[in-house]
Amino acid sequence: MSPCPHFLILLLIIAVSFHLLSHCHSLSRSISPSTMSPATTLFAALLRRPYHHLHLHLRRGLSTHSQPPSIEYSLTHPIYTIWAANTSLGKTLVSAGLSTSFLSSSNRKFLYLKPLQTGFPYDSDSRFVYNKYSQFFSLNKPEFSVFASNHVLRASVPASNAVVKDEMGRSCGNGVVNLGFYEESRLRGTSENGEMMKGFSMLVCKTMYGWKEALSPHLVAERENARVEDAELLEMLKGCLEIDEMESGEKDEVFCVIETAGGVASPGPSGSLQCDLYRPFRFPAILVGDGKLGGISGTISGYESLKLRGYDVVAVVIEDHGLVNEGPLSSYLRRRVPVLVLPPIPKEMSNNLMEWFQEALPTFHSLQEIMQSAFLERASRLRNMPRKAHDIFWWPFTQHKLVPEENVTVIDSRCGENFAVHKVNKVDLITQQFDACASWWTQGPDATLQIELARDVGYATARYGHVMFPENVYEPALECAELLLEGVGKGWASRVYFSDNGSTAIEIALKMALRKFLFDHRIISDDLVAESAESRVDLKVLALRGSYHGDTLGAMEAQAPSPYTGFYQQPWYKGRGHFLDPPTVAMCDGVWKLSLPQEIETQKPNIEDLTFSLRENIFKESRDNSNLSEIYHSYIRQALQLLMDSSGSTQTGALIIEPVIQGAGGMEMVDPLFQRVLVKECRSQKIPVIFDEVFTGFWRLGAESATEFIFCKPDIACYAKLMTGGIVPLAVTLASEAVFEAFVGDSKLQALLHGHSYTAHAIGCTAAVKSIKWFKDSKTNPNLTSEAVMLRELWDSDLVRQISLLPAVHRVVVLGTLCALELRAEGSNAGYASLYARSLIQKLREDGIYMRPLGNVIYLMCGPCTSPESCSNLLNKVYRRLEEL
Amino acid sequence: MSPCPHFLILLLIIAVSFHLLSHCHSLSRSISPSTMSPATTLFAALLRRPYHHLHLHLRRGLSTHSQPPSIEYSLTHPIYTIWAANTSLGKTLVSAGLSTSFLSSSNRKFLYLKPLQTGFPYDSDSRFVYNKYSQFFSLNKPEFSVFASNHVLRASVPASNAVVKDEMGRSCGNGVVNLGFYEESRLRGTSENGEMMKGFSMLVCKTMYGWKEALSPHLVAERENARVEDAELLEMLKGCLEIDEMESGEKDEVFCVIETAGGVASPGPSGSLQCDLYRPFRFPAILVGDGKLGGISGTISGYESLKLRGYDVVAVVIEDHGLVNEGPLSSYLRRRVPVLVLPPIPKEMSNNLMEWFQEALPTFHSLQEIMQSAFLERASRLRNMPRKAHDIFWWPFTQHKLVPEENVTVIDSRCGENFAVHKVNKVDLITQQFDACASWWTQGPDATLQIELARDVGYATARYGHVMFPENVYEPALECAELLLEGVGKGWASRVYFSDNGSTAIEIALKMALRKFLFDHRIISDDLVAESAESRVDLKVLALRGSYHGDTLGAMEAQAPSPYTGFYQQPWYKGRGHFLDPPTVAMCDGVWKLSLPQEIETQKPNIEDLTFSLRENIFKESRDNSNLSEIYHSYIRQALQLLMDSSGSTQTGALIIEPVIQGAGGMEMVDPLFQRVLVKECRSQKIPVIFDEVFTGFWRLGAESATEFIFCKPDIACYAKLMTGGIVPLAVTLASEAVFEAFVGDSKLQALLHGHSYTAHAIGCTAAVKSIKWFKDSKTNPNLTSEAVMLRELWDSDLVRQISLLPAVHRVVVLGTLCALELRAEGSNAGYASLYARSLIQKLREDGIYMRPLGNVIYLMCGPCTSPESCSNLLNKVYRRLEEL
Repeated sequence: MSPCPHFLILLLIIAVSFHLLSHCHSLSRSISPSTMSPATTLFAALLRRPYHHLHLHLRRGLSTHSQPPSIEYSLTHPIYTIWAANTSLGKTLVSAGLSTSFLSSSNRKFLYLKPLQTGFPYDSDSRFVYNKYSQFFSLNKPEFSVFASNHVLRASVPASNAVVKDEMGRSCGNGVVNLGFYEESRLRGTSENGEMMKGFSMLVCKTMYGWKEALSPHLVAERENARVEDAELLEMLKGCLEIDEMESGEKDEVFCVIETAGGVASPGPSGSLQCDLYRPFRFPAILVGDGKLGGISGTISGYESLKLRGYDVVAVVIEDHGLVNEGPLSSYLRRRVPVLVLPPIPKEMSNNLMEWFQEALPTFHSLQEIMQSAFLERASRLRNMPRKAHDIFWWPFTQHKLVPEENVTVIDSRCGENFAVHKVNKVDLITQQFDACASWWTQGPDATLQIELARDVGYATARYGHVMFPENVYEPALECAELLLEGVGKGWASRVYFSDNGSTAIEIALKMALRKFLFDHRIISDDLVAESAESRVDLKVLALRGSYHGDTLGAMEAQAPSPYTGFYQQPWYKGRGHFLDPPTVAMCDGVWKLSLPQEIETQKPNIEDLTFSLRENIFKESRDNSNLSEIYHSYIRQALQLLMDSSGSTQTGALIIEPVIQGAGGMEMVDPLFQRVLVKECRSQKIPVIFDEVFTGFWRLGAESATEFIFCKPDIACYAKLMTGGIVPLAVTLASEAVFEAFVGDSKLQALLHGHSYTAHAIGCTAAVKSIKWFKDSKTNPNLTSEAVMLRELWDSDLVRQISLLPAVHRVVVLGTLCALELRAEGSNAGYASLYARSLIQKLREDGIYMRPLGNVIYLMCGPCTSPESCSNLLNKVYRRLEEL
Repeated sequence: MSPCPHFLILLLIIAVSFHLLSHCHSLSRSISPSTMSPATTLFAALLRRPYHHLHLHLRRGLSTHSQPPSIEYSLTHPIYTIWAANTSLGKTLVSAGLSTSFLSSSNRKFLYLKPLQTGFPYDSDSRFVYNKYSQFFSLNKPEFSVFASNHVLRASVPASNAVVKDEMGRSCGNGVVNLGFYEESRLRGTSENGEMMKGFSMLVCKTMYGWKEALSPHLVAERENARVEDAELLEMLKGCLEIDEMESGEKDEVFCVIETAGGVASPGPSGSLQCDLYRPFRFPAILVGDGKLGGISGTISGYESLKLRGYDVVAVVIEDHGLVNEGPLSSYLRRRVPVLVLPPIPKEMSNNLMEWFQEALPTFHSLQEIMQSAFLERASRLRNMPRKAHDIFWWPFTQHKLVPEENVTVIDSRCGENFAVHKVNKVDLITQQFDACASWWTQGPDATLQIELARDVGYATARYGHVMFPENVYEPALECAELLLEGVGKGWASRVYFSDNGSTAIEIALKMALRKFLFDHRIISDDLVAESAESRVDLKVLALRGSYHGDTLGAMEAQAPSPYTGFYQQPWYKGRGHFLDPPTVAMCDGVWKLSLPQEIETQKPNIEDLTFSLRENIFKESRDNSNLSEIYHSYIRQALQLLMDSSGSTQTGALIIEPVIQGAGGMEMVDPLFQRVLVKECRSQKIPVIFDEVFTGFWRLGAESATEFIFCKPDIACYAKLMTGGIVPLAVTLASEAVFEAFVGDSKLQALLHGHSYTAHAIGCTAAVKSIKWFKDSKTNPNLTSEAVMLRELWDSDLVRQISLLPAVHRVVVLGTLCALELRAEGSNAGYASLYARSLIQKLREDGIYMRPLGNVIYLMCGPCTSPESCSNLLNKVYRRLEEL
């Protein structure tokens, strides 16, 4: 092989154009079709693309908190991101090498994207790829032609000025201008027969943004006063990735690589680390490692940073420095991720690297093959997942007969509040859906918290895995308990009992309450002698109809009969409670209205007590002095009396309520005044009070605890779901010291003999510590001001009112992160088993909103950090679909 | 400041000795006290130390699988590890700088350790620190004296030969020789008054191992044929860290740094990454980052690799390269970890750096202060944790009155099977205890799997967090389900129902079984019309006395009355079962014997059926033909008959058993023949069979599923605990297709309406996928051969027999990872509430074994990958303590 290739049959057309454009969308106009060669026309079409679909939404403020744009890309061809463990390890050589390997036959298109280029125009990786491929082509003289082009779309003013002095009217905001630099060439192969469009391939190289100084993007963006927000960059990238049939023949094979700048965690122009910045796409990764002394470490660390962002690394590539770094790297990767070794790169500046590319070609072929087959495997797995799921899963709360295979949602990943789902819509796509059911009400994290949780959870696993809890102490459990007692338990709780989920937390709460009741009422005593009580006393709970506390038998017993508790579900269920009908409140036709159970209605409450002009009035403590409060009191006293009056053997051992909102029961808002009166009455009769805050806790309703809304404290309370930020199951039952003391004695048998293997597991406690702090800190939660105890209003109140006025809508309940509405329905269309909302839900999924109905009740649920703008966006889409009904 | 300091009052004594020693322990003899100056005597004492306590256990084979030595270190003074994001970032400058900052007054001792030095003797970081401090001292002339020394303990032959040619008799194995290089100097301060021992401080620099070539330790160890195993290195490090009063005055302040080689994840001499190698100590870390272009990325990735091993990083230090890298680093670290900036380091080789050290001194003072205060904070937090835990935790299964504060175990971390616990034993210590209760039987990972789980769990969090399960599919849940059906469910199960823990899995299993029974016996039908059945049928379960299935009410109902189910625990418990007394088997006085319930005993079984010469005979399928089998059959048939014969309204809706071993009930081995007969009888009467494998599953008993031991399959089985490798709660209920079909129909109400928020959470499923594969792969589990379906025998059978012969021991049960024994006890000393084993357990904790008794039953439990050597080590300690009883 000769280092100085002869360009025998090469005809090189280079058209360099400095398009001075007045605005973003007019780029295409600058190239008039009449003056262009066919090849140029083709490239002009290419040039049009990225701008054509760009609707930039520039955002201010913390880039990490700005909502990422809606992500969508096609799975018709491989798209890879090329990362490196450090600068100057040869990412661009790998990209160029992949182009030489892939463009080795006709009907192929290689798209190379360099989103961020500093040191421009002196350094230009897209031009390097363009040049190297061109040289390689002419040296190897294949039998087909290639249209090659290199574009530079935007640049800072200094970078732009280095190319062309006139920047008039090209600004597109934030100190960035439309550069529109463009060069192209037609590379003719050996058996070229003169026909332009026959037997050709394409190389498209694009730089998205250029800055002049050769520094990190975050520095040059500041120094050259040319910032690019994350959302803008992602939107531009999304546009650049769109490939339509006009550009490339239907059967063209396409291969795309996106080359990052610097190392894996080098900051982008907004300051966000690039591994975080590109995360919403989660393209599979190639990691260019370090073959030098010390390079094993940097390569492994870089790999781990990618894994800690949820990326799949498909291969590692290193340059040979004679140190056999691939040995320890392969061993670390357990040979599951291949490590490829490139020949040593010549160091002389003059070298045009053609010999090196030739020598490295087999390695690039292997790499390309690995990338192709990983891509095909991923695509085929995604396609097959619904069938496999259908065959082997047994989904909870799901009638399998009603879920056809095509309705199964394939979730490829989540990023903050959004799912990335796989869809087949003509072609296979990865597209985005807002997780509006908050994955069974567990979710809270934004994209930033999710990544921080990943690191913390990894740390906790490495530090503890799980360790035994009873009689032991370890940091995450202690810190979690401390935070709970300073937070949701403040002012009343002094003990933390850990378990695994809401249902177990309730079973524990009931055991606590019943024991406490037996002691307070001297049915059993400290020395455990009164075992005969067993036959004497039938303990019941007082609860509200429509409340839900979990699916294990003990928790079920505290619920009124419902579809969940039927004989078909659990033949052992008895319903060990007295279940009161609660008054509820909702916005109906634009007004907040109380809806009273018959027994109360007949007491003729004052009419002015039954509607509220503002939602906040519902929660006013001054309602205690109303006539309605008196009516509630007597209703409850009477109900308790009735229970007590009977044979004497039946006793009310506990009160259990979901404060403010009954979730699974249909998102009913119970009158907070009623609940307050109920708690007071029970307390006066020494009946322990349990708050089930599994759903309502941790900002779900806009305050850390729903006790904020009803101005009274329980003796026992249960938390789960959002406590870990929505990462892993963990639950707690908090108790007052008085409750705890009913279990202290000389015998082990007096202790609470209930526990689960993973009690207070370190990973869950670590996640809880992080999330509890994150949500209540105004530095990390933009929905909180520094003094606030409540989230700002997330749902546009005008829009909510308008929705309540729609004929299809019966009632609306909006509080905190929840916006629920009941559709008007009758007969079998109402209730839990109703399939009424199904088609609406299906349409909303097409709109990018993943909802799940509760019969004829549908709801949107966001996280405590979600922006009101995102919420309005969702609500608008719902409004539009409801109008259609 | 002058770059060329005048050594005005300095008297430098340098004693360089090449000790040619015949064996490891004779080093001290080479320096005769009579010929030494007082200073030399002092250093001789220092020299003696590391060898004095060294009992090297060199191991062969995979270094990652060798048991790390028992870790212990004192918390009387700070010990830090200095890490770097890459080579050549200035770790040694930071170490030297810390020595200049710390040794700024008398009565202080600075210990610098360099475990691995390559390029030796040309490069020697310990000599660099020794030299730089000496120069700095003479330049600054403080008012006290310093004894400074530099040691190089061991070296490869080539490295040793570069220092001294004679290597006769100095070998200490594996190509490593005792070099014993030693130099010392006495640095006299300005106000020196002639008295040797008044007002002095000490600098001790030690290189543990030197290799000649300047390459990575794993390469030079191979090239110079001088390997050092991880265990040997850690043992040596432990020895070097021991500081006794002879060496340093009681009130001397001590500060210790350990400087690693290369980057965070650079391999050590065995090939283990250094971040993994030093993990058992988990010393707090200082990370020397990279201030250069691209250095932000490497620093963050290095930080993340440390976090992914459970290290606490106390500060990051970078050199100023004018790029303000500290900005993005601080922002990434959310200002919780300080980032310190050192002045630019002069590049000229001739520079002795004195001016630089002077300029950097304030930064080193800040760094030292940060390290001191982080150390004090950690120590004080550890001391206070028992009290805080005592005040706010409510431990499960724990009578708080019986746990004095001083009995609370503070677990600082775990590494594989071992806890690192904090203890106050004269001084505060971090010491090691084997987690012999496997943290409530959940644990499986060795140290390597734990770290891989950390990475995978971090990845799953970053990729998914948690996502909704019903009607959806995502990779970890699908892969987990596939592995379960190919593994524990092979040959019978076709559906996977996820939940959170053993108790919920049982509740689900019972709902499945009862529904299946109702359908099979036509008590309810497909169209759900027979709701009246509710009042007609009283469904019971058939179960074995002594079995345990969880603490939620539904699971409790399937258990016979016991301390767990009393009226004090759950007044709603009824015991909805028929509970048979099972025959059990155990080794008593050296022989495996059956112990039969009265009803069976009276049938007079053949005497030869009642004892077994070998444990494997108990599990032989040929026992089906024995006379005993016939007796079991008729006993069971009769029992079922009795249940059926009554009013007709009571029916046996399910059989539930823990196969082979009943765990919480006291580690009783039930006769596998009896269980097989029981399953067959129930199946013949269409009673669904549930196996509760929560405890027995996933290699706990030596096979992936305990069904291997009883040669029959269930209709439904529950798994949890070890499934995730012991990381997070996750459970599954597996079912046959026939069971699933009882829930398929046209109505949602016919579906199984039971679910928990975190159903099939991605993190748990990811951990399960990793662990299930890890345990059954002979490449990662050394206890498996490639074809084996059983673990090799872990417990020394001679020793087990001897234990069973001890008068204090009633019976022994050994199977798989379990070795349980019942102590002879009577009256209140027997049973669950017994405190009989307490003092024995306390003594074993002092021996480094963390056990938890089940009344008078104690047990050792290891992981599926634990080596038989570790098990024997534990068993020996138990044997010795039992002998004392």
